[in-house]
Amino acid sequence: MTEMKEFEGLQKFMKRIEEGAFLVVKGKEKTNVMTIGWALIGVVWRRPVMMVAVRTSRFTHQLIEKADSFTVTLPSGDRKKEINLCGSKSGRDLDKFKECGFSAAKSRKVATPVLEIPGSHFECRMIHKAPINPQFLAPDLENLYPAKDYHTLYFGEILASYQT
Amino acid sequence: MTEMKEFEGLQKFMKRIEEGAFLVVKGKEKTNVMTIGWALIGVVWRRPVMMVAVRTSRFTHQLIEKADSFTVTLPSGDRKKEINLCGSKSGRDLDKFKECGFSAAKSRKVATPVLEIPGSHFECRMIHKAPINPQFLAPDLENLYPAKDYHTLYFGEILASYQT
Repeated sequence: MTEMKEFEGLQKFMKRIEEGAFLVVKGKEKTNVMTIGWALIGVVWRRPVMMVAVRTSRFTHQLIEKADSFTVTLPSGDRKKEINLCGSKSGRDLDKFKECGFSAAKSRKVATPVLEIPGSHFECRMIHKAPINPQFLAPDLENLYPAKDYHTLYFGEILASYQT
Repeated sequence: MTEMKEFEGLQKFMKRIEEGAFLVVKGKEKTNVMTIGWALIGVVWRRPVMMVAVRTSRFTHQLIEKADSFTVTLPSGDRKKEINLCGSKSGRDLDKFKECGFSAAKSRKVATPVLEIPGSHFECRMIHKAPINPQFLAPDLENLYPAKDYHTLYFGEILASYQT
């Protein structure tokens, strides 16, 4: 993404996603947070949409498959430690909120809570999902899936977005 | 998308997409251009990615199903006339390039040409597609599909992006 002065804010968003963001999903018994480094944003179905991707092997996958919402937080401070922890440990084994000292605040528009840390927050209502079909994936991306645990792509309508 | 000063450029991108952009796809015998009002952008598979959506009923769908690239142009001037034409007429019936007075310039990185008009251009290599499964679509979006011609979602790796 070069030579595109007009959309500098867009590149900033992409950079921030790559540096690591947090995806929160509320399950019946547990609310979990995981690190994401991938996301898409834009307009689909005449709605502002954010897309996130979760591997079928993840604990979050179990939760998000039954969820009707999710929230995403792009932290504004240095959160390397928490990003590493939430990207390497599974919510099956520990409470990552407790481990990171994170609180979950009530969301404005969706049932899933939002991370109570300074940053940019997106509250999303689940409106579509698409399991990755490896038949339709470029062969050079296969090396991202040595365990064949392809992502499911989740599309959320952004019902609220704000900075804290 | 309110209260998010940090990503004003992002909101600008979303607004520009909604106002109408052009999707160019090169078929074996014909290169076609259609209007799009939906797109997602961000990072997936460790790559900058743009996602576009094409209904199965469209002439462009026939072409893009066999294509290994596509280009997207967000025009910078007033292109209401061309946006209306490329959104309402089918490439089956007429040459929309000729009709709009558009030229197709050689792309920098992909086989599909790029629209030769002032604007922001994205050259994308096809890396994934996902046909919409209506089972996984929120019921309130069904009214966008009275003819059941669901979109296929096409994911392109952005190999070049620039303004002219």
